[in-house]
Amino acid sequence: MTVITSSRRVRRTPFTPGVEAAGVTSYTVYNHMLLPAQFGGFVEDYHHLKRHVQVWDVACERQVSVKGPDALRLMTLISPRDLTKMADDQCYYIPVVDRNGGLLNDPVAVKVAANHYWISIADSDYLQYVLGVADALGLDVVVEEPDVSPLAVQGPKSDDLMARVFGDAVREIRFFRYKRLAFEGREMIVARSGYSKQGGFEIYVDDGDYGMPLWEALFAAGEDLHVRAGCPNLIERVEGGLLSYGNDMTRANTPFEAGLGKYVNSPADYIGKAGLTARPVERMIRPLAIEGDLPRCDRLWPVYAGGARVGQVTSAKYSPDFGTNVAIGMIDQSHWDAGTKVEVETQDGMRDAVVQAKFWI
Amino acid sequence: MTVITSSRRVRRTPFTPGVEAAGVTSYTVYNHMLLPAQFGGFVEDYHHLKRHVQVWDVACERQVSVKGPDALRLMTLISPRDLTKMADDQCYYIPVVDRNGGLLNDPVAVKVAANHYWISIADSDYLQYVLGVADALGLDVVVEEPDVSPLAVQGPKSDDLMARVFGDAVREIRFFRYKRLAFEGREMIVARSGYSKQGGFEIYVDDGDYGMPLWEALFAAGEDLHVRAGCPNLIERVEGGLLSYGNDMTRANTPFEAGLGKYVNSPADYIGKAGLTARPVERMIRPLAIEGDLPRCDRLWPVYAGGARVGQVTSAKYSPDFGTNVAIGMIDQSHWDAGTKVEVETQDGMRDAVVQAKFWI
Repeated sequence: MTVITSSRRVRRTPFTPGVEAAGVTSYTVYNHMLLPAQFGGFVEDYHHLKRHVQVWDVACERQVSVKGPDALRLMTLISPRDLTKMADDQCYYIPVVDRNGGLLNDPVAVKVAANHYWISIADSDYLQYVLGVADALGLDVVVEEPDVSPLAVQGPKSDDLMARVFGDAVREIRFFRYKRLAFEGREMIVARSGYSKQGGFEIYVDDGDYGMPLWEALFAAGEDLHVRAGCPNLIERVEGGLLSYGNDMTRANTPFEAGLGKYVNSPADYIGKAGLTARPVERMIRPLAIEGDLPRCDRLWPVYAGGARVGQVTSAKYSPDFGTNVAIGMIDQSHWDAGTKVEVETQDGMRDAVVQAKFWI
Repeated sequence: MTVITSSRRVRRTPFTPGVEAAGVTSYTVYNHMLLPAQFGGFVEDYHHLKRHVQVWDVACERQVSVKGPDALRLMTLISPRDLTKMADDQCYYIPVVDRNGGLLNDPVAVKVAANHYWISIADSDYLQYVLGVADALGLDVVVEEPDVSPLAVQGPKSDDLMARVFGDAVREIRFFRYKRLAFEGREMIVARSGYSKQGGFEIYVDDGDYGMPLWEALFAAGEDLHVRAGCPNLIERVEGGLLSYGNDMTRANTPFEAGLGKYVNSPADYIGKAGLTARPVERMIRPLAIEGDLPRCDRLWPVYAGGARVGQVTSAKYSPDFGTNVAIGMIDQSHWDAGTKVEVETQDGMRDAVVQAKFWI
């Protein structure tokens, strides 16, 4: 149990006062910003998330704003996913890569306007890559991090809670689409998205001053829905196979290895197209069930079979609902078939494990 | 007091077992890696650093390796500092900027070989910018993060301790120069540098397996020198005016505003040259002495004079040796003269402060 020392560099968010008042018990750091990791504990948070509704401070999902006449040109240069059919109200999950096909981030792109995109990033300063490309080519575009802090509402009662604050229009928002809806007279982008499999929304709060009023409005409106402060839940995300950049895949991996091949379909000559096509896929993300007691997965766990190294596990936690340790690993082709038995080397010793056919939910 | 939740994404270092055994009491996160923030507490660590010698896990100073035929071309494109006279054994502090002159990082560049540089970075993924430029221009260079983890030895007895492990050759290393010295038969780059004003070295441990053996060798050799595990000390760095990227300056600032103008002297047409030249310098880094009790400076503190905002304070702590709260701020030209009285708005209320002529050491 080691304390975190905060500073301006490890930034607070517009919602931090609410998070603190709600009794956050641990943080992690994500994009140079505080991200709550637990309130009541992983298990308590998990059960609540699956039954009720939670409000999450995910301001750390920083936006890379790409705006200007060359915005689409720049987006097309960096996106392995075809953007030509992206609707005006659409959000696209795009695995972004370097010239060799190595993953740099796995953000969600939001089409804000014709010449304006937000790239809602996972934990790496992808802004710097986009900026490097723009600066090197002298593109007519402004790349910056705006004052936009996503607030997520997640859980089965999300529609009910959101409708009380933003009106019944939220119910009509389709998956990975958004509407501009007003809170206290200010229109914000409200998308049906979020880092859980329980359903819900992300509100792109584009002025920090609205942060705490919105936080408080959601809690005031949802008392009978058992609304609580929450955060991305380690157990639930592993059950659902939601990947975490920096944990489950890094620049060492391609989108294909990460199981994201379906998002690689751009007809354009984007950076990384040739490199990505040239690389064979010799390992891939797999769910694993691990036996026995597990320590915290705070480091890469090598995976072995018959004494030879055949992969690694990078996220793992006991699942109360499925009665096993659920895990995400990257497994070599020789051992990636469902049912394959392997051994996982934790800091507390070897554990037996089995490659699964699919994630649990 | 909030706990940090570790994961593979918030990476351990080769020295973490030593740090834990030494009783680290708080961490921060820096370049997606654990950076110890306190062992005995800021004040105890501070007095010890100024009197004895400490070993610091600064593996979080990750290296951006730039290697290949176009390495110097790429370095010249991104560096506002003239690299033409850089000696083969030299380290250069270089404030790096975008096309508008905004700071992206303030790393130390190390010339490893003719076509090979390491950029030892502060807390932003500057690798992504360098890679973006290289990928956009198709440069013949490999940009990657190698397995290099700096270990710092800092404090007045650093030469004595280092000589016992690496030999008396360490005493001849000049400031911001390096020698290749052997530990257990492996040559490592040992530079006279580090993030304190107490003197010392940084060892670029370029194979994680040597991390703990080197850590243990330093402690075994220095018992009578009162060697201890330490870390960059908030009080000492503010006294000495050592800036922290993300705290004291960001992309919103130029090198001139950060007081780093002397490092802007490249004759080459680097990215940002025109932008940097065009921007007026209307604010600048200043030392401030603040009166009264201070809460933790974990957020930007606005600075006022006569009710008008004239700047901000971003790092502050009580200095036992100087008997005042020492602070680093960015102050508008109208109020940046030494002796100017201002007010600093902390989360616990207003405090009187005075702009200083220079830092304390």
